[in-house]
Amino acid sequence: MAAANGDVLGGGGGVPRPTNPMVTPLLTDLYQFSMAYAYWKAGKHLDRAVFDLYFRKNPFAGEFTIFGGLEECIRFIANFKFKEEEIRFLRAALPTCEDGFFEYLSSIDCSDVEVYAIPEGSVVFPKVPLMIIEGPVAVVQLLETPFLTLVNYASLVTTNAARHRLVAGKEKNLLEFGLRRAQGPDGGISASRYSYMGGFDATSNVAAGRLFGIPIRGTHSHAFVSSFMGLDEIIDKALSSSDGSNKCEDFVSLVQSWLIRIKDASSLRGTFGETNQSELAAFTSYALAFPNAFLALVDTYDVMRSGVPNFCAVALALNDMGYKAGGIRLDSGDLAYLSIETRKFFCAIEKEFGVVGFGKTNITASNDLNEETIDALNKQGHEVDSFGIGTYLVTCYAQAALGCVFKLVEINKQPRIKLSEDVTKVSIPCKKRCYRLYGKEGYPLVDIMTGQDEPSPKVGERILCRHPFIESKRAHVVPQHVEELLKCYWPGNSSTQREELTSINENRSRCMRDLLRMRPDHLRKLNPTPYKVSVSTQLYDFIHFLWLNEAPVGELQ
Amino acid sequence: MAAANGDVLGGGGGVPRPTNPMVTPLLTDLYQFSMAYAYWKAGKHLDRAVFDLYFRKNPFAGEFTIFGGLEECIRFIANFKFKEEEIRFLRAALPTCEDGFFEYLSSIDCSDVEVYAIPEGSVVFPKVPLMIIEGPVAVVQLLETPFLTLVNYASLVTTNAARHRLVAGKEKNLLEFGLRRAQGPDGGISASRYSYMGGFDATSNVAAGRLFGIPIRGTHSHAFVSSFMGLDEIIDKALSSSDGSNKCEDFVSLVQSWLIRIKDASSLRGTFGETNQSELAAFTSYALAFPNAFLALVDTYDVMRSGVPNFCAVALALNDMGYKAGGIRLDSGDLAYLSIETRKFFCAIEKEFGVVGFGKTNITASNDLNEETIDALNKQGHEVDSFGIGTYLVTCYAQAALGCVFKLVEINKQPRIKLSEDVTKVSIPCKKRCYRLYGKEGYPLVDIMTGQDEPSPKVGERILCRHPFIESKRAHVVPQHVEELLKCYWPGNSSTQREELTSINENRSRCMRDLLRMRPDHLRKLNPTPYKVSVSTQLYDFIHFLWLNEAPVGELQ
Repeated sequence: MAAANGDVLGGGGGVPRPTNPMVTPLLTDLYQFSMAYAYWKAGKHLDRAVFDLYFRKNPFAGEFTIFGGLEECIRFIANFKFKEEEIRFLRAALPTCEDGFFEYLSSIDCSDVEVYAIPEGSVVFPKVPLMIIEGPVAVVQLLETPFLTLVNYASLVTTNAARHRLVAGKEKNLLEFGLRRAQGPDGGISASRYSYMGGFDATSNVAAGRLFGIPIRGTHSHAFVSSFMGLDEIIDKALSSSDGSNKCEDFVSLVQSWLIRIKDASSLRGTFGETNQSELAAFTSYALAFPNAFLALVDTYDVMRSGVPNFCAVALALNDMGYKAGGIRLDSGDLAYLSIETRKFFCAIEKEFGVVGFGKTNITASNDLNEETIDALNKQGHEVDSFGIGTYLVTCYAQAALGCVFKLVEINKQPRIKLSEDVTKVSIPCKKRCYRLYGKEGYPLVDIMTGQDEPSPKVGERILCRHPFIESKRAHVVPQHVEELLKCYWPGNSSTQREELTSINENRSRCMRDLLRMRPDHLRKLNPTPYKVSVSTQLYDFIHFLWLNEAPVGELQ
Repeated sequence: MAAANGDVLGGGGGVPRPTNPMVTPLLTDLYQFSMAYAYWKAGKHLDRAVFDLYFRKNPFAGEFTIFGGLEECIRFIANFKFKEEEIRFLRAALPTCEDGFFEYLSSIDCSDVEVYAIPEGSVVFPKVPLMIIEGPVAVVQLLETPFLTLVNYASLVTTNAARHRLVAGKEKNLLEFGLRRAQGPDGGISASRYSYMGGFDATSNVAAGRLFGIPIRGTHSHAFVSSFMGLDEIIDKALSSSDGSNKCEDFVSLVQSWLIRIKDASSLRGTFGETNQSELAAFTSYALAFPNAFLALVDTYDVMRSGVPNFCAVALALNDMGYKAGGIRLDSGDLAYLSIETRKFFCAIEKEFGVVGFGKTNITASNDLNEETIDALNKQGHEVDSFGIGTYLVTCYAQAALGCVFKLVEINKQPRIKLSEDVTKVSIPCKKRCYRLYGKEGYPLVDIMTGQDEPSPKVGERILCRHPFIESKRAHVVPQHVEELLKCYWPGNSSTQREELTSINENRSRCMRDLLRMRPDHLRKLNPTPYKVSVSTQLYDFIHFLWLNEAPVGELQ
């Protein structure tokens, strides 16, 4: 169990409570309670039901999704229990319901619920259940909304992060900077957590760093720069050298002398005039506070005429004292052009003053970046080493919701189907097993769903994989490797072995590994090839039998 | 103070803690701490700074925004205090910072911060500060990220809700159904709260209903319908009449007999054949549980051939027992067509069986609705009485983020400006006062910002209102009414009178009232007229003086 920092242990076998204390059994739709009452009133509440949690379409016009949110679902059910005051509220909200129902509600927990799920961080596909939840119908129904709330956004933002990682490439540093634009505090904290799981390197969000052990990063804002008026504000001007061997009594003068030397350097002469002195004061002051981690935001006044020269003056003064500057951040303008010009400036400094490695000083970019703009920067050419990504990442601006649903597929061992005029909305009945079949080259070829009691596909044996709804779409596969997708994370009263939850770092590695394993055309940005999801012949026949059975026959007139 | 249900009182003068317990002083960007340290190290941390919180552009291609999130900001600062374990975490995260800094952090609260704000629920416009925050620069800097997190999404979703209300019209019932698709649990809870503030009537979210006293609504889902196999599952078939005067021992038979009567009715003959019996069982069972509130989801199998006839059979049986059915919900298909056909069916029932009012039975629609689809339904014609809106409302799908920023405008009485190559990103310096000027017809004409010490605009006196950046754009206004926009919600150590926060219902009324007061062309969906935001001549001159002063002079070669 990946216990987060500072968590209060809950009642469910040592599983901590949900990270967000607002996740309680009341965090659900009212209709779950009115249905629970109707089940109870009809004496059906203990009917054993099986629900599939799945989505119908990959987000962001892509052909893959990363599953997130499992740990929070398990924390939720492990600690599922109504408090007295919650029951009181429900009594008032449902005044016509009988007392016995509220006594029943007071008594329930999830000890007779079973949860099967694909491991968190896995690459997943439409229609295949991410989770299968089995238990008394009234109880499982109460889990629908919180499970969807916990999985939908987690999976969406993890997928978004993974897509950013794919487009940026594995060498770049990806920083999540979205807290201020997130959809509420929990949106921000979840975004930081799941962006990291999807492949980001760090977050600016201190609370998320603390809760999940994610690396945290940050420097300063425009306000810091503009809060300074000039260099005479700096009172304590002394700086000891990195090794403590000497001390510069007037670091400000050292910076100023470097600025003059830069301005006079033959290859830089005329590229800038008077730089902004309040900016220079802010940079110098920041360097005095963080000589080992001097990072400067260079676009408060003018990047090339003020920010970059001021940064270089401070960085060279730090270099004299044995410190290496961390780099700059660009937060506006033409990032391709400015990063290239900045790189040239850095290289010129390296050459002019013989400061080895200065040309490679880190450049971070951070203005309204997303998958598209990074792709465009790559095409144009740029010199950015780190991307700070906020709004578009955390709000999933390109598609702000994932449409996971929670559908009844079996009750009292009777398979159930939900029809729809839209074929993609027809649910696949039965409690199922799901497998991923791998081909000779090591790529996954197809996911297949079978009935619970069908024999599992075998390595080296030919199996017919059928499209669930279209008769003519089918293919034979001889798998070289068969992976059963869902494991039992909450066995309830069954004797099934309980799978341990994995840590955020393991989930992050699983995500990276699963993506590396995919055939690249499934992952590409433009016109990706859909990955195949299929059913066994037995399940196919059963779907269509049930469909015909439930659909009303029309009357032509 | 609008104290929410179940809140723990905090330390700040009786102001409750933030609704979400995850909102702590660590819910901020790391750079706020590194800046705080640099300020502290430079001895600048107590410098008195003024920040404006504002946005630059209205969302959803509109020309207005509704301000939300103020109460949570005030709760946050009223209880702002670092815990020991938080300080320990920060020490580890910033290992090079001196001990004295952490002692300073341990000591701070917001008792010397002042917060001025526009009342929550008000109609607001770009550039005008929603909040002005004054205090020691290091402390106010720490508030930046949490304030933005609390205001951005709150204002965005309130505005989205208000836009849905405007397009639906004030007669329709608007229900927020978005919890399962929200961006995290808090996204869901905030969405319910602020959708209500923006003009919705109710939510499906039980937790939000409890926290904020919002009406909650809900019926049943497809799973409830498909969980039934047939009518023989219903064991207890008795139903007492509404007035208790008699009892029907076999309500199931009564429903069945009504289904036959409907099928044989001359005006309905041939419109449907055999209806789905598991659906009929589900409806009957639900009616037995909620005879006073029988609402049925009619699209599990087929709306017109099964769902609506089954609903009517149950509703007519209930009518026999003195109960009035609540209505139906459509969750797929062509909502305009289906609602019209359903209405015809209801009217035919009223006529055939003389059940007065049956034709007016409530029709709720709820499939992926948004501003556009409601607008399209209105244009096509429809018979929907209530709209259940989820994904598009709560995730603000059309624009998933509002870009509020937090900019330093003054420090130690010195005005500060943040320049940008993009003119719309230049900040307006100085601590300001803001007014809304009303014209003869009662409409607001223009918002104007002035310096803190300028005389306020007077009723009947001509005032020149200037565009903040474009010299040629200016207009004379003779206001008939002058409203000062920002009030002091947190006076800190100043002697200013503290404005009480208003309840969610007062904020909701304010929103409705402010929208009613606007000239309609500012609110229309297509090409709305921008509302004018201006500065006084004195402030205009000052902006441009400062701009010239701070911008570096180029060197032409």
